[in-house]
Amino acid sequence: MADFDTGLARNAANHAPLTPIDYLKRTAEVYGDKTAIIHGHLRQTWGKTYDRCRQLASALRQVGIGRNDTVAVLLPNTPAMIEAHFGVPMSGGVLCALNIRLDVEGLIFCLQHGEAKVLLVDSEFAAYIPRIKTHMPTLNVIQVNDLLGPVDVAHYGDDEYEHFLARARNTDDWVWPDDEWDAIALNYTSGTTGNPKGVVYHHRGAAINALSNILEWDMAKFPVYLWTLPLFHCNGWCFAWTIAARAGVNVCLRKFEPKLCLDLIREHQVSHYCAAPIVHAALAHAPEAQKAGIEHSVKGLVAGAAPPEAVLASMEQMDFDITHVYGLTETYGPSAVCVAHEEWHDLSISERASMKARQGMRGSLQAGLQVFHEENMTAVCADGEDMGELMFRGNIVMKGYLKNPEATQKAFADGWFHTGDLGVQYADGYVQIKDRSKDIIISGGENISSIEVEDVVYKHPAVMNAAVVAVSDEKWGEVPVAFVEIKPDASLTEQALLDWCREHLARFKVPKKIIFGELPKTATGKIQKFELRRLAKEHTSRI
Amino acid sequence: MADFDTGLARNAANHAPLTPIDYLKRTAEVYGDKTAIIHGHLRQTWGKTYDRCRQLASALRQVGIGRNDTVAVLLPNTPAMIEAHFGVPMSGGVLCALNIRLDVEGLIFCLQHGEAKVLLVDSEFAAYIPRIKTHMPTLNVIQVNDLLGPVDVAHYGDDEYEHFLARARNTDDWVWPDDEWDAIALNYTSGTTGNPKGVVYHHRGAAINALSNILEWDMAKFPVYLWTLPLFHCNGWCFAWTIAARAGVNVCLRKFEPKLCLDLIREHQVSHYCAAPIVHAALAHAPEAQKAGIEHSVKGLVAGAAPPEAVLASMEQMDFDITHVYGLTETYGPSAVCVAHEEWHDLSISERASMKARQGMRGSLQAGLQVFHEENMTAVCADGEDMGELMFRGNIVMKGYLKNPEATQKAFADGWFHTGDLGVQYADGYVQIKDRSKDIIISGGENISSIEVEDVVYKHPAVMNAAVVAVSDEKWGEVPVAFVEIKPDASLTEQALLDWCREHLARFKVPKKIIFGELPKTATGKIQKFELRRLAKEHTSRI
Repeated sequence: MADFDTGLARNAANHAPLTPIDYLKRTAEVYGDKTAIIHGHLRQTWGKTYDRCRQLASALRQVGIGRNDTVAVLLPNTPAMIEAHFGVPMSGGVLCALNIRLDVEGLIFCLQHGEAKVLLVDSEFAAYIPRIKTHMPTLNVIQVNDLLGPVDVAHYGDDEYEHFLARARNTDDWVWPDDEWDAIALNYTSGTTGNPKGVVYHHRGAAINALSNILEWDMAKFPVYLWTLPLFHCNGWCFAWTIAARAGVNVCLRKFEPKLCLDLIREHQVSHYCAAPIVHAALAHAPEAQKAGIEHSVKGLVAGAAPPEAVLASMEQMDFDITHVYGLTETYGPSAVCVAHEEWHDLSISERASMKARQGMRGSLQAGLQVFHEENMTAVCADGEDMGELMFRGNIVMKGYLKNPEATQKAFADGWFHTGDLGVQYADGYVQIKDRSKDIIISGGENISSIEVEDVVYKHPAVMNAAVVAVSDEKWGEVPVAFVEIKPDASLTEQALLDWCREHLARFKVPKKIIFGELPKTATGKIQKFELRRLAKEHTSRI
Repeated sequence: MADFDTGLARNAANHAPLTPIDYLKRTAEVYGDKTAIIHGHLRQTWGKTYDRCRQLASALRQVGIGRNDTVAVLLPNTPAMIEAHFGVPMSGGVLCALNIRLDVEGLIFCLQHGEAKVLLVDSEFAAYIPRIKTHMPTLNVIQVNDLLGPVDVAHYGDDEYEHFLARARNTDDWVWPDDEWDAIALNYTSGTTGNPKGVVYHHRGAAINALSNILEWDMAKFPVYLWTLPLFHCNGWCFAWTIAARAGVNVCLRKFEPKLCLDLIREHQVSHYCAAPIVHAALAHAPEAQKAGIEHSVKGLVAGAAPPEAVLASMEQMDFDITHVYGLTETYGPSAVCVAHEEWHDLSISERASMKARQGMRGSLQAGLQVFHEENMTAVCADGEDMGELMFRGNIVMKGYLKNPEATQKAFADGWFHTGDLGVQYADGYVQIKDRSKDIIISGGENISSIEVEDVVYKHPAVMNAAVVAVSDEKWGEVPVAFVEIKPDASLTEQALLDWCREHLARFKVPKKIIFGELPKTATGKIQKFELRRLAKEHTSRI
């Protein structure tokens, strides 16, 4: 054989770490005058966005941020949030975009576990800062006064975002990753245990998933992207980086409201958006008057649950083309796609809805999606019946969990990422989820750990035994329902226990119903969650 | 800082070597029934193509091909050529696609230097085999009887392609690269020295350039791609892999003929093609009757020289959208693109032609394109005047030259790939070539080494001194012209020397003109090629 190895090593000329930072740089070079960000009356070009991101990187470096330093942000989908997706990694730092729906205890857990040094925080969340500062006195808090945010906000940060940027001394002081395997982001997810796990993304995965988004959607240059999907969810499924790569427009959005979104879609000729099922449903069911005047085609991605038939039908009528995708925080958001085939056009809407309800196939740049029998890692029969666990492998899988080698090893056992979702595979290769093996409840696009909710319920002095399960809900997808056994000598009302939960949990995690009674257990005393799910369904259908 | 490194290493679940092989696999999984290849009456699906590529890989492994073993092919743009682009790397081997326009000496050089073990050869080139076998008796020659190739061909190979495939015992016996840095292809290029250099591509670069092609062209799924560009040129600029990634159709083409191409474009609704300027010109200048009935838009890429104004105007009238791209064999084909801006629509055709004549900007997935003063590696002034050498860096740059560490190091000096092309940069960042620092002549899309031609001329017993330079030619882009000093006591006619050249050189390398006389030299005796280029221009304009 010929020697294709000697003298042919990597060097600065023929190898560059893959990183989405470069998508911003190249777009600024080629399309510097094109609009990057629309927010209220703000129109910001890619040239200006690149300048501001370099300022952010430089300013962060001036306060000591370097490789592997965590910079957290608590921001809605504002211009500062887009800028942070480039400026933070350009400082060498790791972006930790916090879920703004968490309660302050949850936020503090993430900040402490992630060892955040700097926090960019929107004024909407000013009230959290004193409590956070009590726990983390050295945290450098940068106050972000968004132009569409609260007005007349008192000073609460160590610095203010625009002042912070303006203080950047050298906008050339920013860095490429040394290695594409370096961390770019840290995203906390509720898993099977109560404490969120810190999912670490690397530059390579972020760069590749950003391209994968382009491929799945046939996204031509200059898309107009509406930010209905929170950027704190898997970095907005990496779309901040995708839109930079395509020189598109980011239409920012502090908060989802159907009328506002429809107005933005009409005014800016929005071409693409991503969202949880509840958001699509709200758009589909908006009054006709609000939808009027939207004459162009729009493409949407939905994940978290399949789009119901009624929503799909409304969407088709609006010329909104909705694709069902599937993934987890651990896979940078969706990395499977229910590829729609031409032939499906000829099906009835209900048949088409059931085809589209499936989770689908691996994305173009994900190496594998398979359903395995967990016990022996053999692939299930592709008959739509044989159940197994859905598993991914490839470049769109996280680096691992921060400071949690055990959970990381478990997640990657046998060379596949274990999703915890149980399902089947059909003859055409498409997979479909049938159940969850992990105790996660997905409500309005947010993960809720049933164990975290159980922990809170258990702490009530009158509770002896408790279990929380998901029941499906038309509006939220799923909601938590709690089953509770009261101590023999105690008494407790549903209202009292709900109040207790509201005190100790973020609002979206509070059970929608509490059902008192003895819990069904196995012979070994293990609570039968399967049985509880059945009971919960019965109970809630009677509400 | 948080520890983002420990316990977060690569593993089989979260890292897969980038390789274009996976584009075929995934497309076969999702779009197995779609047409992959059209050739005469042949319609071959992606499912079938994947099967045949696995057969090819398995059959190659059965004859001993493994990692780093070279499999050469001497094929026009036929189905076997497409299959070789997957089947060979799937065997672990390295694909060496030979230039079918080389003479047999040139072919033997490449086969020997590349240490080829197997050669797939189209029956059109059967006559070369005895000579090749004399030099390489152990070379395993597989005869390819293409369905549109010569008929009634005698047996000349050790095996025949279809028999070879049919003998594959285990179609699961194919391999992923161990490392994305592993070689995937070997492409011989004429450089500054007479002997071709073996440019080595790796899986990573091939995979990334295939995606880059999609991005530059906004290529949606299911393109219909006409193979006007030889696949032996930089693996068809990696488009075999691109079309697989997009589940497109490969419309094969043994030989370029304007009428045939226009017929294929009409019949199959071809959406994309790439070609040298001469091919575009031939399409543009075809009789109107031949163009009639092509009502759809077509996108074309041109490299090697800027499209002349007249061609551009004709093309625009045909609704053919031509983009000028730039690159070298060392950069997997084009990795710079003259991105056209909306505003250019308002320019006159001549102004637009001059904007489009520039080589442009780095491609989306190439890390850098810069013009440097060679002596101190400072960037030129972006004023359209200051001259320097064009240099690339990034993931779309070769692994290096095979068995030539010196040339590799020289090419990669200072962390940039030196193109040898001299040019300028404009205020908008676009670069333009003004001269070549290397002695390469690009004629009809083929590289000719002026030194190789000089060597042949020198060998004629009557020649004392010789120099070969490029002059521009309306049809071929450039053609070689030779300047010759005859020995004092000898005599030689132009015809006699041309005959000599035809005997020792591939037809396209033979000088178009020979000019006798004393060669202009510097004080140190170095031939002044610059002066010769001026003289050649004068002479040829008088032809």
